[in-house]
Amino acid sequence: MLPIPFLLLLLSSSILSPSSAADFCVADLSLPTTPAGFSCKKESTVTISDFVFSGLGATGNTDNIIKAAVTPAFSSQFPGLNGLGISTIRLDIEIDGVVPLHTHPAASEVLLVTQGAILAGFISSSNSVYYKTLYEGDLMVFPQGLLHFQVQCGSSPAVAFATFNSPDPGLQITSLSLFGSSLPSQLVEKVTFLDDAQVKKLKKVLGGTG
Amino acid sequence: MLPIPFLLLLLSSSILSPSSAADFCVADLSLPTTPAGFSCKKESTVTISDFVFSGLGATGNTDNIIKAAVTPAFSSQFPGLNGLGISTIRLDIEIDGVVPLHTHPAASEVLLVTQGAILAGFISSSNSVYYKTLYEGDLMVFPQGLLHFQVQCGSSPAVAFATFNSPDPGLQITSLSLFGSSLPSQLVEKVTFLDDAQVKKLKKVLGGTG
Amino acid sequence: MLPIPFLLLLLSSSILSPSSAADFCVADLSLPTTPAGFSCKKESTVTISDFVFSGLGATGNTDNIIKAAVTPAFSSQFPGLNGLGISTIRLDIEIDGVVPLHTHPAASEVLLVTQGAILAGFISSSNSVYYKTLYEGDLMVFPQGLLHFQVQCGSSPAVAFATFNSPDPGLQITSLSLFGSSLPSQLVEKVTFLDDAQVKKLKKVLGGTG
Amino acid sequence: MLPIPFLLLLLSSSILSPSSAADFCVADLSLPTTPAGFSCKKESTVTISDFVFSGLGATGNTDNIIKAAVTPAFSSQFPGLNGLGISTIRLDIEIDGVVPLHTHPAASEVLLVTQGAILAGFISSSNSVYYKTLYEGDLMVFPQGLLHFQVQCGSSPAVAFATFNSPDPGLQITSLSLFGSSLPSQLVEKVTFLDDAQVKKLKKVLGGTG
Amino acid sequence: MLPIPFLLLLLSSSILSPSSAADFCVADLSLPTTPAGFSCKKESTVTISDFVFSGLGATGNTDNIIKAAVTPAFSSQFPGLNGLGISTIRLDIEIDGVVPLHTHPAASEVLLVTQGAILAGFISSSNSVYYKTLYEGDLMVFPQGLLHFQVQCGSSPAVAFATFNSPDPGLQITSLSLFGSSLPSQLVEKVTFLDDAQVKKLKKVLGGTG
Amino acid sequence: MLPIPFLLLLLSSSILSPSSAADFCVADLSLPTTPAGFSCKKESTVTISDFVFSGLGATGNTDNIIKAAVTPAFSSQFPGLNGLGISTIRLDIEIDGVVPLHTHPAASEVLLVTQGAILAGFISSSNSVYYKTLYEGDLMVFPQGLLHFQVQCGSSPAVAFATFNSPDPGLQITSLSLFGSSLPSQLVEKVTFLDDAQVKKLKKVLGGTG
Repeated sequence: MLPIPFLLLLLSSSILSPSSAADFCVADLSLPTTPAGFSCKKESTVTISDFVFSGLGATGNTDNIIKAAVTPAFSSQFPGLNGLGISTIRLDIEIDGVVPLHTHPAASEVLLVTQGAILAGFISSSNSVYYKTLYEGDLMVFPQGLLHFQVQCGSSPAVAFATFNSPDPGLQITSLSLFGSSLPSQLVEKVTFLDDAQVKKLKKVLGGTG
Repeated sequence: MLPIPFLLLLLSSSILSPSSAADFCVADLSLPTTPAGFSCKKESTVTISDFVFSGLGATGNTDNIIKAAVTPAFSSQFPGLNGLGISTIRLDIEIDGVVPLHTHPAASEVLLVTQGAILAGFISSSNSVYYKTLYEGDLMVFPQGLLHFQVQCGSSPAVAFATFNSPDPGLQITSLSLFGSSLPSQLVEKVTFLDDAQVKKLKKVLGGTG
Repeated sequence: MLPIPFLLLLLSSSILSPSSAADFCVADLSLPTTPAGFSCKKESTVTISDFVFSGLGATGNTDNIIKAAVTPAFSSQFPGLNGLGISTIRLDIEIDGVVPLHTHPAASEVLLVTQGAILAGFISSSNSVYYKTLYEGDLMVFPQGLLHFQVQCGSSPAVAFATFNSPDPGLQITSLSLFGSSLPSQLVEKVTFLDDAQVKKLKKVLGGTG
Repeated sequence: MLPIPFLLLLLSSSILSPSSAADFCVADLSLPTTPAGFSCKKESTVTISDFVFSGLGATGNTDNIIKAAVTPAFSSQFPGLNGLGISTIRLDIEIDGVVPLHTHPAASEVLLVTQGAILAGFISSSNSVYYKTLYEGDLMVFPQGLLHFQVQCGSSPAVAFATFNSPDPGLQITSLSLFGSSLPSQLVEKVTFLDDAQVKKLKKVLGGTG
Repeated sequence: MLPIPFLLLLLSSSILSPSSAADFCVADLSLPTTPAGFSCKKESTVTISDFVFSGLGATGNTDNIIKAAVTPAFSSQFPGLNGLGISTIRLDIEIDGVVPLHTHPAASEVLLVTQGAILAGFISSSNSVYYKTLYEGDLMVFPQGLLHFQVQCGSSPAVAFATFNSPDPGLQITSLSLFGSSLPSQLVEKVTFLDDAQVKKLKKVLGGTG
Repeated sequence: MLPIPFLLLLLSSSILSPSSAADFCVADLSLPTTPAGFSCKKESTVTISDFVFSGLGATGNTDNIIKAAVTPAFSSQFPGLNGLGISTIRLDIEIDGVVPLHTHPAASEVLLVTQGAILAGFISSSNSVYYKTLYEGDLMVFPQGLLHFQVQCGSSPAVAFATFNSPDPGLQITSLSLFGSSLPSQLVEKVTFLDDAQVKKLKKVLGGTG
């Protein structure tokens, strides 16, 4: 019989190619992207740092118009997520703050409140509205692609973490899309029924052109 | 050797169970639904009628506020689509009509213009705007979950057909979600930055409560 | 509080990496392909032209043996489709023309007739046959991977558009596979039960060798 | 501290609901089917017999026109496969036997030859032909949905096992679809270019009507 | 033109079937399960309570051998998750506590530490080991199906929340599988190389039989 | 009408781009990997050799501590499998040999015994144990991600072939992960409840460090 330490070699050298993508595919942001996400770093260069992300430990900067901050850990920021079908963001919402109406085009979301209270809700395709005030430890699920929002409640700032079943769920904030983009005011009005004055006022606030 | 006609029996009886879901799964709307769609009719009751749908042949009723009609052939209307990952709708848009800003929460779309001209566009997660006037025979693709719209152009009504890579893509019209639902005005304003007067005016027009 | 226009920067710069594949992945035909499709163009070079395709507006050249033309808008022709799970083709079928028996190896199909009449059908794994004459505005669905066909009917040419739940559904025409390839006649006969004379006759017509 | 045996109860009773579908979903053939396969038996009634299938141990009956037998272990025959995305068939091919040209509409296949020799091949969408004689221990892969075949070679019968990445891959034998179904001869000829005499001859052999 | 409130009816009644599964599929635990999860409740009976779960707000009972508690919010406990591809658990780990080596057979995981410090790690298929001490606000990702563990560190208890890209990810604790099941000791020893005395000792502690 | 041989050109040249990934994606091991597998070779360089693998025809080297050999045909060894969602391994187990407890992180498995007898089993998430002795021709299915094992039985060596619904299913042998890796003994003991002496003894045998 062969000396014992050869067992490992016999088994693992034959089975586990160094370029195998079976276990994980840490993003190499310098290579081309694909429909399934970023290309993979070579496994020999992967370290524990690729699988840990500390960027959500600090309070986001809420000194802005919505008094809220969205800090993402998507695969661009946290390369270990690439190809694994999951990602997370941190929400900080000051008193009177709001995460405006938005969708994630390609993912469902679970929201976990870890501080304060948040009034959260979504609207279904059949225009049913589902909303409730969430407290510390509460979870809420937002089905894929539906309009939803989070509003701070009560007397202290709120913190929450949202996790998505996609490493790159996207985030489309309705009012930024309408009033912070180059979509011409006339078109905005046509496709939303909003008044011209309203559209122009918000375009000025949110940086839209056209 | 066995008589020749037994070949069929030998091969197909063993391989093809009458309850196999391999080829298709025509929806039985009376049975429970599942995350993957409707339960299947028994194959013995399936006919060619399950796979053909004639409901898109007629012009939809555009005598309404948007001067447009959306006629769906989703799996509820066209049971043969169930489980096959595809569905279609017909759009009729009168002169000056519009299909307002909307998303399909769970599908990408290709739009084919068959009559007239349509100004169609979408907005990306990064607030880039992509739009163009489409003429007869033009195709446009709208990536999954993003806000998009269609506006009639030119001097004649327009007709188009949109196909989705889902048998039940959903349709969420932004202004109906905001102003035609029970979401309280105060919340609408908070999550969109719209003025109170604007929200209340549109709630009245679109049937919203709260 | 920060000046208002900073809102956009704060939110979108942090969330939306320029190389994010979340929204779409327009094909770069010069880069390597992957099991999930073509690699993506950089988002900064994407324009509205990538999402619109005008090649299906013109009648295809039907001056051939089948009196029919198949004009594809797959991701090779229409790069915006890449990664979005959908594509379309145009069928033109002259009087007495036919789209011969074929399969799409990796997609289900909905067919929309926009001019004339077409006798269309498919055969299931259990050898059940489903066919019907379709008129303008009719839809028919062909489940993934099954043999199907389209034959012109009536007194005028027919036009139809087929959409697939894949950006590259493939198209395998049975008689071309058998009689237009290099599969040796003897093998063709062995695996189909066709007579030698029949196989050799069609090989000559359809360009097969071997 | 609690007595030690409570650990199991504490952990597993809370986490593992008796109706959980997480691990497996053994088919209950008496319940409705769904687009994702059969409904599941209750876990409490599942036994090792659901996960083991002995039906492929015996030689299939090859006393037929193709001198071959296809014995399936799909989820209808082997309920433990349901929902697990995999299944297997046994092929027995006598001297001079053949598994005629066919497709599996919804699965890729690996073929393992365990006795004798088999000439196996497939044709791609671009009409490229790939074929080779396989010997005991050889594997060949057939990409999803493409036409392929297996022909016995050499001086002894052949045995092979094919595994599919679907629990119900389907099997569509081209000549049975054409000549063993009710598709009218005139249509068969139109969509294949075959001669009337050839079609009628094979319809008689293979049991077709119409 | 029709009175304005008819717009809603015209659009939504035609498009949104009451039994549509497009947006969500809240689990009806009394109906059969399927490979894709539980069957759906009727949409008319769905309420906000289906989408909110408060069971993770309280500290789990850690008075047990591992000084840790795993409190799940899988679709059995939180029916709104069904079909949405996501779920969450809460971990409470006392000083000196541990979540023993385990896998989730069908999901990747992101772990968020919200109190204390946790030494967490996983082992790849190629026997590379990745581990690190995580502090409040740190995220770590565990690729699908790989062995991993969490150990309390430092001077205070730890709390963490793990989210999975599956509504029913499963949880297989290696030592419970080996020593808390009915797998005979002789077999355990054979397949792990462990000594007989070690196996029998742990079987006694963890409740195993055989 | 055009000369007949032009039919092929007309149809196939327009439809089938040389870089289309529709049919298959043979791995180019020199290009970057992606979450969906290896990048594809150019179709013009693909040959029948890419789709046939003869490496499983020979008995593996079982002269080692487990008296067994695992010979893989994953996409690294058999590039034609790439992107097709399937792969195979050969198991050779000498008398008294064993394939130790292991998981495949990303695939379900069917095992076919072709020589001898094997006692095979798996453990579910709820610690139910399913095992049985398998004989020549028997199939057993192992659901995705669960712990399982194979032990030789009877008086002759055993051979089996396992097929997976993934081209790169991974293989994580529990005892190698624990005792053949660099995971420190103290951590191993903490997360498994094993005694220090047991861990150190097996680390020595299996080559572990730390």
